[in-house]
Amino acid sequence: MKEALTLVKVGGKIVENEASLSALLTAFNAIRGPKLLVHGGGRTATDVASRLGIETHMVGGRRITDAAMLDVVTMVYGGLVNKRVVAGLQARGINAVGLTGADMDVMRSRRRPVVRMADGTEVDYGFVGDVEAVDGQRLADLIRSGVTPVLAPLTHDGWGSLLNTNADTIAGEAAKALAQHFDVSLVFCFEHAGVLADPDDETSVIPHIGRADFAQLVADGVVAGGMIPKIENSLAAVEAGVARVIITRADALAQTLVQDEQKDDAGFNIGTIIS
Amino acid sequence: MKEALTLVKVGGKIVENEASLSALLTAFNAIRGPKLLVHGGGRTATDVASRLGIETHMVGGRRITDAAMLDVVTMVYGGLVNKRVVAGLQARGINAVGLTGADMDVMRSRRRPVVRMADGTEVDYGFVGDVEAVDGQRLADLIRSGVTPVLAPLTHDGWGSLLNTNADTIAGEAAKALAQHFDVSLVFCFEHAGVLADPDDETSVIPHIGRADFAQLVADGVVAGGMIPKIENSLAAVEAGVARVIITRADALAQTLVQDEQKDDAGFNIGTIIS
Repeated sequence: MKEALTLVKVGGKIVENEASLSALLTAFNAIRGPKLLVHGGGRTATDVASRLGIETHMVGGRRITDAAMLDVVTMVYGGLVNKRVVAGLQARGINAVGLTGADMDVMRSRRRPVVRMADGTEVDYGFVGDVEAVDGQRLADLIRSGVTPVLAPLTHDGWGSLLNTNADTIAGEAAKALAQHFDVSLVFCFEHAGVLADPDDETSVIPHIGRADFAQLVADGVVAGGMIPKIENSLAAVEAGVARVIITRADALAQTLVQDEQKDDAGFNIGTIIS
Repeated sequence: MKEALTLVKVGGKIVENEASLSALLTAFNAIRGPKLLVHGGGRTATDVASRLGIETHMVGGRRITDAAMLDVVTMVYGGLVNKRVVAGLQARGINAVGLTGADMDVMRSRRRPVVRMADGTEVDYGFVGDVEAVDGQRLADLIRSGVTPVLAPLTHDGWGSLLNTNADTIAGEAAKALAQHFDVSLVFCFEHAGVLADPDDETSVIPHIGRADFAQLVADGVVAGGMIPKIENSLAAVEAGVARVIITRADALAQTLVQDEQKDDAGFNIGTIIS
């Protein structure tokens, strides 16, 4: 029986606002046992870029990262957001360390080649990296030494270049690598209480989705659009050894992670569990 | 006999220019054995602040750090400069980790109180920290595990706030804490080849300064101005257990650190040695 590890991914919206960041850190602090936090920061990056006179271009929700934008995301993700989170966790007694993929070489990636879209146009995402290798052993050693890693959505190519990498991907890849060492629960904080059966009803959370349920939910049109890749990636993480993926609201993290010994499924009592 | 450790401090001028950064990293890479790098980044901070419409105020060479400026230095020192150095070292096969004082709680400080100047005016440096505690054991453990720490000039107060801290101070405090674990050579990279007997002659480097020599050099007016606190701090570091402090030019680092077994004084063959 492996030791439990909780890996929480939060988007920029939560960590960029002082009140919601503080609530998140308090909830994160309440999680028992080893843990790891992955954060975004896209809104601040867009804001700082704009103040520096650098325009933001997105394609399919992904940021085009030229050299100037790479500097911005390195400053914002690796510096401003990451260090604020680390200092905030230290104040709560959590011995956090902020890491990009370059730090201790924990996550290496390859620059994404130019992508040809369905309509024939080509998209160069620039300094964007697709993860190639995660040093799960190094992360596990750090965690076992009592340290809580805080991962920024940046990787490196091993040739001296930092690369911008989607925070959901960082979380998924870290969870898969750590699954060799821990019983990993991967928690995606998101704007809804979970995957909803009725998009207009926050109480219609589907408590559990497995591979067969997913096919049925897609066939019935209950799961559609951006939720399809999210759940697909979650199922892939589970199939790669992650014990469970939980999709929940950030402000419900404290309740979600009650870790009540009497609760089923490792104590998660809110949100959608994918396993 | 403790193992040798080389701690190099470089100012912003070197790390902010691509060519000089590359030369520095190559020279740093050539240093044998355990090592640690401390960097500045003030010029980039001033530049980024100015592009963001934030004015820089300095008092006695020290940056007044209000909340907006703290965000800038957190972005620039903790993000842009630190992560570029780390990625550059990884490309050279050095397993670097970038750290602020908040990361793993390696360096804690106290916000500097308002200072009353000689002329009666008061100066509030803002979010500037004076170092209180360094976790030398944690740094030593990291170094012994094969990792090279890269310290940014930022500390934290333990209550959630990052604080701007002078890079020379960070280097001196880290050297003193590590002196309990290693035979520490602290190298300050600087604009001259060493402490000069004649300020107009780069070949007039004083090869060695001890406590008695220092008193004599000050009495004779050879050492004056900003060099007095620099040497005083170096002597204090030596008196606190640091084996030697070397003052040299960054572009001479490769020659300085030849680590030639046949050379005296741990192989340092250029610059001023303070011991």
